[in-house]
Amino acid sequence: MRKTILFAIVLLSASPVRAADPVPYPEGYRHWHHVKSMVIEAGHPLYDSFGGIHHIYANDKALQGYRSGRFADGAVIVFDLLDAKSENHAIVEGARKVIGVMRRDAKRYAATGGWGFEAFGGDSRERVVGAQADTACFQCHAGQRERAYLFSQLRDR
Amino acid sequence: MRKTILFAIVLLSASPVRAADPVPYPEGYRHWHHVKSMVIEAGHPLYDSFGGIHHIYANDKALQGYRSGRFADGAVIVFDLLDAKSENHAIVEGARKVIGVMRRDAKRYAATGGWGFEAFGGDSRERVVGAQADTACFQCHAGQRERAYLFSQLRDR
Repeated sequence: MRKTILFAIVLLSASPVRAADPVPYPEGYRHWHHVKSMVIEAGHPLYDSFGGIHHIYANDKALQGYRSGRFADGAVIVFDLLDAKSENHAIVEGARKVIGVMRRDAKRYAATGGWGFEAFGGDSRERVVGAQADTACFQCHAGQRERAYLFSQLRDR
Repeated sequence: MRKTILFAIVLLSASPVRAADPVPYPEGYRHWHHVKSMVIEAGHPLYDSFGGIHHIYANDKALQGYRSGRFADGAVIVFDLLDAKSENHAIVEGARKVIGVMRRDAKRYAATGGWGFEAFGGDSRERVVGAQADTACFQCHAGQRERAYLFSQLRDR
Protein backbone atom coordinates (compact mmCIF):
# COMPACT_ATOMS: atom_id res chain seq x y z
CA MET A 1 0.00 0.00 0.00
CA ARG A 2 2.79 2.37 0.96
CA LYS A 3 4.62 1.50 -2.24
CA THR A 4 1.49 2.23 -4.26
CA ILE A 5 1.12 5.68 -2.68
CA LEU A 6 4.79 6.44 -3.26
CA PHE A 7 4.44 5.36 -6.87
CA ALA A 8 1.41 7.60 -7.26
CA ILE A 9 3.36 10.53 -5.85
CA VAL A 10 6.21 9.87 -8.26
CA LEU A 11 3.73 9.71 -11.13
CA LEU A 12 2.15 12.98 -10.10
CA SER A 13 5.56 14.61 -9.88
CA ALA A 14 6.25 13.42 -13.39
CA SER A 15 2.90 14.73 -14.69
CA PRO A 16 3.01 17.57 -17.19
CA VAL A 17 2.19 20.16 -14.51
CA ARG A 18 5.56 21.86 -14.40
CA ALA A 19 6.84 25.24 -15.51
CA ALA A 20 9.50 23.94 -17.86
CA ASP A 21 7.01 22.34 -20.27
CA PRO A 22 7.92 23.60 -23.70
CA VAL A 23 5.39 25.81 -25.47
CA PRO A 24 4.65 24.29 -28.88
CA TYR A 25 5.18 26.20 -32.13
CA PRO A 26 1.88 27.98 -32.91
CA GLU A 27 0.96 26.22 -36.15
CA GLY A 28 -1.22 28.30 -38.46
CA TYR A 29 -1.01 31.51 -36.43
CA ARG A 30 -0.77 33.62 -39.60
CA HIS A 31 -4.46 32.85 -40.14
CA TRP A 32 -5.44 33.91 -36.62
CA HIS A 33 -7.07 37.19 -35.71
CA HIS A 34 -4.76 40.18 -36.21
CA VAL A 35 -5.04 42.08 -32.93
CA LYS A 36 -2.83 45.13 -33.54
CA SER A 37 0.57 46.26 -34.80
CA MET A 38 3.36 48.60 -33.75
CA VAL A 39 6.74 49.80 -34.99
CA ILE A 40 9.60 50.05 -32.45
CA GLU A 41 12.32 52.43 -33.64
CA ALA A 42 15.91 53.22 -32.66
CA GLY A 43 15.94 55.05 -29.34
CA HIS A 44 13.09 53.02 -27.85
CA PRO A 45 14.16 51.21 -24.65
CA LEU A 46 13.17 47.86 -26.18
CA TYR A 47 14.80 48.50 -29.55
CA ASP A 48 17.65 46.05 -29.09
CA SER A 49 15.28 43.19 -28.40
CA PHE A 50 12.18 44.18 -30.34
CA GLY A 51 13.15 46.79 -32.93
CA GLY A 52 11.10 46.45 -36.12
CA ILE A 53 7.43 46.09 -36.94
CA HIS A 54 5.45 43.60 -34.95
CA HIS A 55 1.99 42.16 -35.30
CA ILE A 56 0.00 40.49 -32.55
CA TYR A 57 -2.17 37.49 -33.43
CA ALA A 58 -4.64 35.71 -31.16
CA ASN A 59 -6.29 32.31 -31.50
CA ASP A 60 -10.03 32.10 -30.76
CA LYS A 61 -9.57 31.46 -27.04
CA ALA A 62 -7.13 34.35 -26.73
CA LEU A 63 -9.50 36.65 -28.62
CA GLN A 64 -12.24 35.77 -26.14
CA GLY A 65 -9.75 36.38 -23.35
CA TYR A 66 -8.84 39.86 -24.59
CA ARG A 67 -12.55 40.69 -24.55
CA SER A 68 -13.46 39.14 -21.22
CA GLY A 69 -10.20 39.65 -19.34
CA ARG A 70 -10.15 35.92 -18.50
CA PHE A 71 -7.93 33.68 -20.59
CA ALA A 72 -8.89 30.01 -20.79
CA ASP A 73 -6.25 27.29 -20.94
CA GLY A 74 -5.22 26.90 -24.56
CA ALA A 75 -5.36 30.62 -25.35
CA VAL A 76 -2.31 31.52 -27.45
CA ILE A 77 -0.94 34.93 -28.39
CA VAL A 78 1.81 35.44 -30.97
CA PHE A 79 4.12 38.45 -31.21
CA ASP A 80 5.40 38.37 -34.81
CA LEU A 81 8.45 40.60 -35.26
CA LEU A 82 9.71 41.57 -38.72
CA ASP A 83 12.49 43.89 -39.79
CA ALA A 84 11.18 47.38 -40.55
CA LYS A 85 12.90 48.80 -43.63
CA SER A 86 12.75 52.49 -44.54
CA GLU A 87 12.16 52.96 -48.27
CA ASN A 88 11.22 56.22 -49.97
CA HIS A 89 9.37 57.72 -47.01
CA ALA A 90 7.68 54.46 -46.16
CA ILE A 91 8.33 51.65 -43.72
CA VAL A 92 7.99 48.22 -45.26
CA GLU A 93 8.22 44.76 -43.78
CA GLY A 94 11.46 42.82 -44.05
CA ALA A 95 12.57 39.40 -42.88
CA ARG A 96 11.13 37.81 -39.77
CA LYS A 97 13.35 38.34 -36.73
CA VAL A 98 11.55 36.24 -34.16
CA ILE A 99 8.12 35.17 -33.01
CA GLY A 100 7.25 35.29 -29.35
CA VAL A 101 4.54 32.99 -28.03
CA MET A 102 2.47 33.08 -24.86
CA ARG A 103 0.36 30.01 -24.15
CA ARG A 104 -2.16 29.94 -21.31
CA ASP A 105 -2.20 27.01 -18.93
CA ALA A 106 -2.92 28.15 -15.43
CA LYS A 107 -1.54 25.02 -13.73
CA ARG A 108 1.26 24.04 -16.06
CA TYR A 109 2.79 27.49 -16.09
CA ALA A 110 1.77 28.59 -12.59
CA ALA A 111 5.35 29.70 -11.87
CA THR A 112 5.11 32.35 -14.62
CA GLY A 113 1.64 33.75 -14.04
CA GLY A 114 -0.17 30.90 -15.77
CA TRP A 115 1.47 31.69 -19.11
CA GLY A 116 4.10 29.64 -20.89
CA PHE A 117 6.62 31.73 -22.84
CA GLU A 118 8.73 30.77 -25.82
CA ALA A 119 10.29 32.39 -28.85
CA PHE A 120 11.36 30.93 -32.19
CA GLY A 121 14.15 32.53 -34.19
CA GLY A 122 13.45 33.93 -37.66
CA ASP A 123 11.40 31.55 -39.76
CA SER A 124 12.79 28.57 -37.91
CA ARG A 125 11.48 26.34 -35.16
CA GLU A 126 14.64 27.02 -33.14
CA ARG A 127 13.77 27.82 -29.54
CA VAL A 128 15.49 30.91 -28.23
CA VAL A 129 13.94 31.12 -24.74
CA GLY A 130 13.68 27.54 -23.49
CA ALA A 131 14.28 27.33 -19.75
CA GLN A 132 14.92 31.09 -19.51
CA ALA A 133 11.22 32.07 -19.64
CA ASP A 134 11.28 33.45 -16.13
CA THR A 135 14.17 35.86 -16.63
CA ALA A 136 13.86 36.44 -20.39
CA CYS A 137 10.10 37.04 -20.49
CA PHE A 138 8.19 36.91 -17.25
CA GLN A 139 10.21 39.46 -15.32
CA CYS A 140 8.88 42.16 -17.64
CA HIS A 141 5.38 40.72 -18.03
CA ALA A 142 5.01 40.36 -14.25
CA GLY A 143 4.52 44.12 -14.05
CA GLN A 144 1.36 43.73 -16.15
CA ARG A 145 -0.32 41.45 -13.63
CA GLU A 146 -3.44 43.61 -13.50
CA ARG A 147 -3.77 43.21 -17.26
CA ALA A 148 -3.50 39.42 -17.33
CA TYR A 149 0.29 39.84 -17.72
CA LEU A 150 -0.14 41.24 -21.23
CA PHE A 151 1.24 44.42 -22.77
CA SER A 152 -1.09 44.28 -25.75
CA GLN A 153 -4.70 45.28 -25.63
CA LEU A 154 -7.26 44.39 -28.24
CA ARG A 155 -7.88 46.97 -30.94
CA ASP A 156 -11.38 45.60 -31.32
CA ARG A 157 -12.36 47.38 -34.48
CA MET B 1 -43.95 38.60 -79.03
CA ARG B 2 -42.11 41.79 -79.94
CA LYS B 3 -43.21 43.26 -76.62
CA THR B 4 -41.87 40.22 -74.79
CA ILE B 5 -38.46 40.55 -76.45
CA LEU B 6 -38.37 44.25 -75.74
CA PHE B 7 -39.25 43.57 -72.12
CA ALA B 8 -36.48 40.95 -71.93
CA ILE B 9 -33.97 43.47 -73.29
CA VAL B 10 -35.06 46.04 -70.74
CA LEU B 11 -34.71 43.43 -67.99
CA LEU B 12 -31.22 42.53 -69.18
CA SER B 13 -30.24 46.17 -69.29
CA ALA B 14 -31.39 46.49 -65.72
CA SER B 15 -29.49 43.37 -64.67
CA PRO B 16 -26.67 43.86 -62.15
CA VAL B 17 -24.01 43.70 -64.87
CA ARG B 18 -22.98 47.33 -64.72
CA ALA B 19 -19.92 49.11 -63.41
CA ALA B 20 -21.73 51.37 -60.98
CA ASP B 21 -22.93 48.53 -58.76
CA PRO B 22 -21.96 49.51 -55.26
CA VAL B 23 -19.38 47.34 -53.48
CA PRO B 24 -20.86 46.20 -50.16
CA TYR B 25 -19.19 46.93 -46.83
CA PRO B 26 -16.84 43.99 -46.08
CA GLU B 27 -18.52 42.63 -42.97
CA GLY B 28 -16.15 40.76 -40.65
CA TYR B 29 -12.98 41.64 -42.54
CA ARG B 30 -11.04 42.13 -39.28
CA HIS B 31 -11.13 38.35 -38.90
CA TRP B 32 -9.80 37.73 -42.41
CA HIS B 33 -6.24 36.78 -43.25
CA HIS B 34 -3.75 39.57 -42.54
CA VAL B 35 -1.73 39.78 -45.75
CA LYS B 36 0.84 42.48 -44.94
CA SER B 37 1.28 45.98 -43.52
CA MET B 38 3.09 49.20 -44.38
CA VAL B 39 3.59 52.69 -42.98
CA ILE B 40 3.41 55.64 -45.40
CA GLU B 41 5.19 58.70 -44.02
CA ALA B 42 5.33 62.40 -44.83
CA GLY B 43 7.25 62.91 -48.07
CA HIS B 44 5.84 59.81 -49.74
CA PRO B 45 3.97 60.66 -52.97
CA LEU B 46 0.80 59.03 -51.62
CA TYR B 47 1.02 60.60 -48.17
CA ASP B 48 -1.90 62.98 -48.63
CA SER B 49 -4.25 60.15 -49.52
CA PHE B 50 -2.77 57.20 -47.67
CA GLY B 51 -0.47 58.52 -44.93
CA GLY B 52 -0.54 56.31 -41.82
CA ILE B 53 -0.23 52.60 -41.15
CA HIS B 54 -2.26 50.28 -43.32
CA HIS B 55 -3.02 46.60 -43.14
CA ILE B 56 -4.22 44.45 -46.02
CA TYR B 57 -6.79 41.73 -45.33
CA ALA B 58 -8.00 39.08 -47.77
CA ASN B 59 -11.05 36.81 -47.61
CA ASP B 60 -10.54 33.14 -48.49
CA LYS B 61 -11.14 33.62 -52.20
CA ALA B 62 -8.73 36.55 -52.32
CA LEU B 63 -6.09 34.57 -50.42
CA GLN B 64 -6.36 31.82 -53.02
CA GLY B 65 -6.14 34.51 -55.70
CA TYR B 66 -2.93 35.98 -54.29
CA ARG B 67 -1.43 32.50 -54.41
CA SER B 68 -2.67 31.42 -57.84
CA GLY B 69 -2.70 34.81 -59.57
CA ARG B 70 -6.33 34.24 -60.57
CA PHE B 71 -9.02 35.92 -58.50
CA ALA B 72 -12.45 34.30 -58.50
CA ASP B 73 -15.63 36.37 -58.36
CA GLY B 74 -16.32 37.17 -54.72
CA ALA B 75 -12.67 37.68 -53.80
CA VAL B 76 -12.43 40.75 -51.55
CA ILE B 77 -9.36 42.68 -50.42
CA VAL B 78 -9.45 45.36 -47.74
CA PHE B 79 -6.93 48.18 -47.29
CA ASP B 80 -7.38 49.28 -43.66
CA LEU B 81 -5.76 52.66 -43.02
CA LEU B 82 -5.15 53.94 -39.48
CA ASP B 83 -3.44 57.04 -38.22
CA ALA B 84 0.21 56.37 -37.35
CA LYS B 85 1.18 58.20 -34.17
CA SER B 86 4.80 58.68 -33.12
CA GLU B 87 5.23 58.03 -29.40
CA ASN B 88 8.57 57.64 -27.59
CA HIS B 89 10.47 56.23 -30.56
CA ALA B 90 7.60 54.01 -31.58
CA ILE B 91 4.81 54.23 -34.13
CA VAL B 92 1.46 53.20 -32.73
CA GLU B 93 -1.92 52.84 -34.35
CA GLY B 94 -4.44 55.66 -34.04
CA ALA B 95 -7.95 56.17 -35.31
CA ARG B 96 -9.14 54.60 -38.54
CA LYS B 97 -8.93 57.00 -41.47
CA VAL B 98 -10.58 54.95 -44.19
CA ILE B 99 -10.95 51.43 -45.50
CA GLY B 100 -10.55 50.75 -49.18
CA VAL B 101 -12.26 47.72 -50.67
CA MET B 102 -11.67 45.83 -53.92
CA ARG B 103 -14.29 43.24 -54.82
CA ARG B 104 -13.80 40.87 -57.73
CA ASP B 105 -16.60 40.39 -60.23
CA ALA B 106 -15.23 40.05 -63.72
CA LYS B 107 -18.49 40.91 -65.48
CA ARG B 108 -20.05 43.37 -63.10
CA TYR B 109 -16.94 45.50 -62.88
CA ALA B 110 -15.56 44.86 -66.36
CA ALA B 111 -15.10 48.59 -66.90
CA THR B 112 -12.54 48.73 -64.07
CA GLY B 113 -10.51 45.60 -64.71
CA GLY B 114 -13.04 43.24 -63.16
CA TRP B 115 -12.67 44.84 -59.74
CA GLY B 116 -15.22 46.98 -57.95
CA PHE B 117 -13.70 49.75 -55.84
CA GLU B 118 -15.15 51.52 -52.82
CA ALA B 119 -13.94 53.23 -49.67
CA PHE B 120 -15.69 53.86 -46.37
CA GLY B 121 -14.69 56.81 -44.22
CA GLY B 122 -13.31 56.25 -40.72
CA ASP B 123 -15.34 53.69 -38.78
CA SER B 124 -18.48 54.60 -40.70
CA ARG B 125 -20.31 53.03 -43.59
CA GLU B 126 -20.16 56.32 -45.45
CA ARG B 127 -19.09 55.77 -49.06
CA VAL B 128 -16.33 58.09 -50.18
CA VAL B 129 -15.73 56.76 -53.69
CA GLY B 130 -19.13 55.88 -55.12
CA ALA B 131 -19.33 56.61 -58.83
CA GLN B 132 -15.74 57.92 -58.89
CA ALA B 133 -14.11 54.47 -58.85
CA ASP B 134 -12.64 54.93 -62.29
CA THR B 135 -10.82 58.19 -61.59
CA ALA B 136 -10.32 57.82 -57.82
CA CYS B 137 -9.05 54.23 -57.82
CA PHE B 138 -8.72 52.47 -61.13
CA GLN B 139 -6.53 55.02 -62.88
CA CYS B 140 -3.70 54.11 -60.51
CA HIS B 141 -4.49 50.39 -60.30
CA ALA B 142 -4.64 50.10 -64.09
CA GLY B 143 -0.86 50.34 -64.16
CA GLN B 144 -0.72 47.07 -62.19
CA ARG B 145 -2.55 45.11 -64.88
CA GLU B 146 0.14 42.44 -65.00
CA ARG B 147 -0.33 41.88 -61.28
CA ALA B 148 -4.11 41.45 -61.38
CA TYR B 149 -4.42 45.24 -60.83
CA LEU B 150 -3.07 44.92 -57.29
CA PHE B 151 -0.26 46.79 -55.57
CA SER B 152 -0.06 44.34 -52.68
CA GLN B 153 1.59 40.99 -52.88
CA LEU B 154 1.11 38.18 -50.41
CA ARG B 155 3.67 37.95 -47.63
CA ASP B 156 2.96 34.26 -47.44
CA ARG B 157 4.76 33.51 -44.24
